[in-house]
Amino acid sequence: MNIAIIGATGYGGIELLRFLQHHPHVSNCFVYSSSQDGALLADSFPHIGEREGLILRKIDIEQIVSTCEVVFFATPPGVSSELAPLLIDQGMKVIDLSGDFRLKDRTVYEKWYKRQTAQNKYLQQAVYGLTEWNRENIRSAQLLSNPGCYPTATLLGLAPLVKNRLVEEDSIVVDAKSGVSGAGRQASLNTHFSEVNENVKIYKVNAHQHIPEIEQMLTDWDEHIQPITFSTHLIPMTRGIMATIYAKAKTDVSVEMLLDLYKTSYENSTFVRIRKQGQFPSTKEVYGSNYCDIGIAYDERTGRVTVVSVIDNLVKGAAGQAIQNFNVMMGWDETSGLLFAPIYP
Amino acid sequence: MNIAIIGATGYGGIELLRFLQHHPHVSNCFVYSSSQDGALLADSFPHIGEREGLILRKIDIEQIVSTCEVVFFATPPGVSSELAPLLIDQGMKVIDLSGDFRLKDRTVYEKWYKRQTAQNKYLQQAVYGLTEWNRENIRSAQLLSNPGCYPTATLLGLAPLVKNRLVEEDSIVVDAKSGVSGAGRQASLNTHFSEVNENVKIYKVNAHQHIPEIEQMLTDWDEHIQPITFSTHLIPMTRGIMATIYAKAKTDVSVEMLLDLYKTSYENSTFVRIRKQGQFPSTKEVYGSNYCDIGIAYDERTGRVTVVSVIDNLVKGAAGQAIQNFNVMMGWDETSGLLFAPIYP
Amino acid sequence: MNIAIIGATGYGGIELLRFLQHHPHVSNCFVYSSSQDGALLADSFPHIGEREGLILRKIDIEQIVSTCEVVFFATPPGVSSELAPLLIDQGMKVIDLSGDFRLKDRTVYEKWYKRQTAQNKYLQQAVYGLTEWNRENIRSAQLLSNPGCYPTATLLGLAPLVKNRLVEEDSIVVDAKSGVSGAGRQASLNTHFSEVNENVKIYKVNAHQHIPEIEQMLTDWDEHIQPITFSTHLIPMTRGIMATIYAKAKTDVSVEMLLDLYKTSYENSTFVRIRKQGQFPSTKEVYGSNYCDIGIAYDERTGRVTVVSVIDNLVKGAAGQAIQNFNVMMGWDETSGLLFAPIYP
Amino acid sequence: MNIAIIGATGYGGIELLRFLQHHPHVSNCFVYSSSQDGALLADSFPHIGEREGLILRKIDIEQIVSTCEVVFFATPPGVSSELAPLLIDQGMKVIDLSGDFRLKDRTVYEKWYKRQTAQNKYLQQAVYGLTEWNRENIRSAQLLSNPGCYPTATLLGLAPLVKNRLVEEDSIVVDAKSGVSGAGRQASLNTHFSEVNENVKIYKVNAHQHIPEIEQMLTDWDEHIQPITFSTHLIPMTRGIMATIYAKAKTDVSVEMLLDLYKTSYENSTFVRIRKQGQFPSTKEVYGSNYCDIGIAYDERTGRVTVVSVIDNLVKGAAGQAIQNFNVMMGWDETSGLLFAPIYP
Repeated sequence: MNIAIIGATGYGGIELLRFLQHHPHVSNCFVYSSSQDGALLADSFPHIGEREGLILRKIDIEQIVSTCEVVFFATPPGVSSELAPLLIDQGMKVIDLSGDFRLKDRTVYEKWYKRQTAQNKYLQQAVYGLTEWNRENIRSAQLLSNPGCYPTATLLGLAPLVKNRLVEEDSIVVDAKSGVSGAGRQASLNTHFSEVNENVKIYKVNAHQHIPEIEQMLTDWDEHIQPITFSTHLIPMTRGIMATIYAKAKTDVSVEMLLDLYKTSYENSTFVRIRKQGQFPSTKEVYGSNYCDIGIAYDERTGRVTVVSVIDNLVKGAAGQAIQNFNVMMGWDETSGLLFAPIYP
Repeated sequence: MNIAIIGATGYGGIELLRFLQHHPHVSNCFVYSSSQDGALLADSFPHIGEREGLILRKIDIEQIVSTCEVVFFATPPGVSSELAPLLIDQGMKVIDLSGDFRLKDRTVYEKWYKRQTAQNKYLQQAVYGLTEWNRENIRSAQLLSNPGCYPTATLLGLAPLVKNRLVEEDSIVVDAKSGVSGAGRQASLNTHFSEVNENVKIYKVNAHQHIPEIEQMLTDWDEHIQPITFSTHLIPMTRGIMATIYAKAKTDVSVEMLLDLYKTSYENSTFVRIRKQGQFPSTKEVYGSNYCDIGIAYDERTGRVTVVSVIDNLVKGAAGQAIQNFNVMMGWDETSGLLFAPIYP
Repeated sequence: MNIAIIGATGYGGIELLRFLQHHPHVSNCFVYSSSQDGALLADSFPHIGEREGLILRKIDIEQIVSTCEVVFFATPPGVSSELAPLLIDQGMKVIDLSGDFRLKDRTVYEKWYKRQTAQNKYLQQAVYGLTEWNRENIRSAQLLSNPGCYPTATLLGLAPLVKNRLVEEDSIVVDAKSGVSGAGRQASLNTHFSEVNENVKIYKVNAHQHIPEIEQMLTDWDEHIQPITFSTHLIPMTRGIMATIYAKAKTDVSVEMLLDLYKTSYENSTFVRIRKQGQFPSTKEVYGSNYCDIGIAYDERTGRVTVVSVIDNLVKGAAGQAIQNFNVMMGWDETSGLLFAPIYP
Repeated sequence: MNIAIIGATGYGGIELLRFLQHHPHVSNCFVYSSSQDGALLADSFPHIGEREGLILRKIDIEQIVSTCEVVFFATPPGVSSELAPLLIDQGMKVIDLSGDFRLKDRTVYEKWYKRQTAQNKYLQQAVYGLTEWNRENIRSAQLLSNPGCYPTATLLGLAPLVKNRLVEEDSIVVDAKSGVSGAGRQASLNTHFSEVNENVKIYKVNAHQHIPEIEQMLTDWDEHIQPITFSTHLIPMTRGIMATIYAKAKTDVSVEMLLDLYKTSYENSTFVRIRKQGQFPSTKEVYGSNYCDIGIAYDERTGRVTVVSVIDNLVKGAAGQAIQNFNVMMGWDETSGLLFAPIYP
């Protein structure tokens, strides 16, 4: 099968390529960029190697339609909402890693993203690709909207609690920490090494565009869920997200009961691993892999549950989950091309 | 004035020396270590320089009493609880950076520290050195118990909210992030570079010994405060703590009102700096300095206040605050020897 | 094929496992440790995942011989020199990642390693596994001595110059920079995060045990080569080695000519990639992969050639090259199980 | 005394301010920027604190002349060569941290910097501020050209060898490693966190503009010195330079003899500290301070001397040495305002 990656010169695009080049069902990857027609991809990313011979092409819908079967977008906001419909209308399958199709409610999108949303028709058609909780719909999706990095870590951590109505609906606080690669490859003062190194920063306080994405899913699971507090911190590392999730238990729970629930919830999900009692994952333990590792605590003093959920933001939080969804869409084994261990240390 | 530092070969001790060597009221610093009698301090810490000629001495109470006027302890648990009484009984002033004298309730100490506490007489005599909120008592202290690093960041961030009863008593969640120097100089797998670098870890979930220290102070301020949720994360950096504090507002508040309150609360406190609306401090902005920088947000969607409080864990969280308390105890300007800017970048 | 990894709880061992678990010709990996009989490997390395069910066994030669066909040693000095002979004598193939069998001259070993060397018989039998330059001998090796990390980067960078006698024999200076994982998983002050972070250290000046290993190979290639200057620096990163190599050109050379020579020298070596003129590799561009990337400059002002050679110290510098040698020994494609891209960023 | 800092929004400028605000002979610092007239400096650098009330002014020569006595330039290339003459002509003292006045030979400047040089009259008037080796001339300087960061570390390390003609004139190789802050505050892909972190890069191979600056001084000391090989590497840390210097000894030397020579050479130089035999400095041991620490080895096998010289690039390599030169120019104690210990860890 031939595959197109649009936006191959960003971190999401290059990570897609890492997986697709060795995917058992993919024969060729074509890489597209808005600005670098004809250049070697290895000029932008020397780690790819010149011998691979990958050449960037300008984005030409007809050429893509005639060459490829599935198109991945790893583009800045506003690109896929414009281009994906052209592909969808010609029957192509599209997997979009950007946020353009994630929010069903256009006013919510416009409030949080402060830009115009996609056409409603495609918004409603798009299937949200939180694989572990939406396999049925993904199987038949033509337009797959891949979740954001923070929502992936947060929702996988919250799902068993919320779906089973175990926590007070207005008590959810998520304190998330992320490596810097989530900000992409565009240089800025906020991602300048000397400003980030040996530093922790909080950013977009109460204003991160992933908040409505998380809340949309949570209220889908339980309509009584109230707005959540969700904070994002920049950590001096390249990859990794940890979401530390706090919520008040509604009734008497125990950590043993919670661990059982989580293990059962994810027993058929290869990529979600639940730690044993008293153990909690660190971000490095999923580095470079598609795993989401989860640890759980319950504090009798406060009645609060603490869930610790970690992912590699560029893998399970972006390109890896996109491949996982691609596998489900194609009817292949969900883990095809994704069964590699984390790189440690 | 001559000063003794006991435990000079740890990070707290060497940081005390950095300030005391250039303190306007200190003529000599003598450095003591349990194990390295006669060795040059520069052999342990080459950055000190051999020319300084500082020689480690074994801990000899009589020698210290006859040479020095004030003694700083920067020692592991259990050392100062044993040695400080000997100095106190001879009329010496003691400033203890360890946790030995912080908890007034012996059963609480023993539960959280899992070791025996100090003698009750000295526990009750010890004055807790959260300088900004306890200056009166510190002025006349003979035995000063210097706060822990996490409690300092957390309590300075929470004080105006709790003292003014602005938040729900059972709603406080503190998510703290710390650099690795807080773990001291003793090598271990948990502080091994390859394990910590490019990683975020949560540790001592619901079990950190600083929890009762924070709660002791909070309930002193408002007896209705309930147990708090307090989590600690290890960040791949050497220095710095950020406490991200969440609490539900009791009544209608606004961020403007909160900022006014914080500015007023700390207007006479040189070392606490409140950021303007919409701005939040990062840990690097206090690196190497005695400042605690605080930013505040209020989210109308959730009714939660977010307070972001940052310190350098070795300065305001240890040696710097100890000097600040020393200054208050001696009747000097609180800022003596501490007015240097953060090192940035 | 069944494989044994002895020393699976170190960084070299766990990296071997990362490759062998997905190697097309390996069915089972058994993991052995001197100290943790019966424990789950996931207890030492949670990133492995409990579901893998890997259990550490104590080292039992008979059990290994009866179960496995090839044995990898990723052990501290002195282990394989003692145990490998027992396996060799029973006809097993052994791949040793330690330095025990690298130096043919026992007095040289004892001078630089300051410990006793292996039995001469096995020393002489051992084949040095610098794959790209020793494939013929590796093919028939029973005891393979895998090169050190620094020698791999250095020798691949120097080979074309030395074999073609292009540089003054007494002019070679190698300035090497390494990530901290090369020091292994044993905690020590030298690898303590707060001591290594935001720091560059030089260590073992003129005394690194990899010096004789490099010189042994160089003088094999050209007996006139004089002792080299080789320095090692610890860099605040986990993985990666850069060897910056300086040597005076004997005669008139040009960078074009040198690049041609290098490209020709490595044209059949998938894992060595030569950069184009004016471009130089950085360590991150081979992160997690088996590549050695090389850039070359020639300075007419000084008559010196500069070669920049980078590897991932745990892959091409250890486990990856071991698998590459394993492939050659077994007669498989040299790249089997090793064709994954570097992880970037 | 009133002082002007031109270019206060860069890292060099803000570091000057850190020292000048607490300098015993400075009453006021005025800060100038080409772009931010009227803005609070704390808006660019929150660590400064709003309470300091420092306001950026546009660069107005007449206003500066009427207000200040000494002017520091911490500006990009081409600014001081244009503005400093206006101040010099009015009798002001100028200390320039940029490279504009460092090279006496205009063709050399234009070759390496690829831009036009300053007017010859001022070039010839400028005094090179390598304090330890040029105190006499600095004392009477009106226009002080502060050395580059790499030249400072390299020249302090080489001076005793070259001045005493102990090494072969064509054998000098300098392998330098630098933190990222040397690249300034301007964001770019080369200083983007995700590209620099966990990475070592070589840059400007054989083409760094500090090469002619080093050679100008070396040939001043010994006209027989040949062009040197000098390489620069970007290290994933913010501050610090290590220059590892290699040269062939001309005659029989010993490390004891060399150490004696270095200790004697710098016995009156507070800021140069020579390590004892077998010990070598790391960059962190001078972090935030004005020290240059030096270690020396001699290898009998190769006849090469290795000198390891470390500085904080923003202090001894920029702002600190500028203050040191300021002190000498004013006739004050050379160490005024600079006697603080390194921050460790």
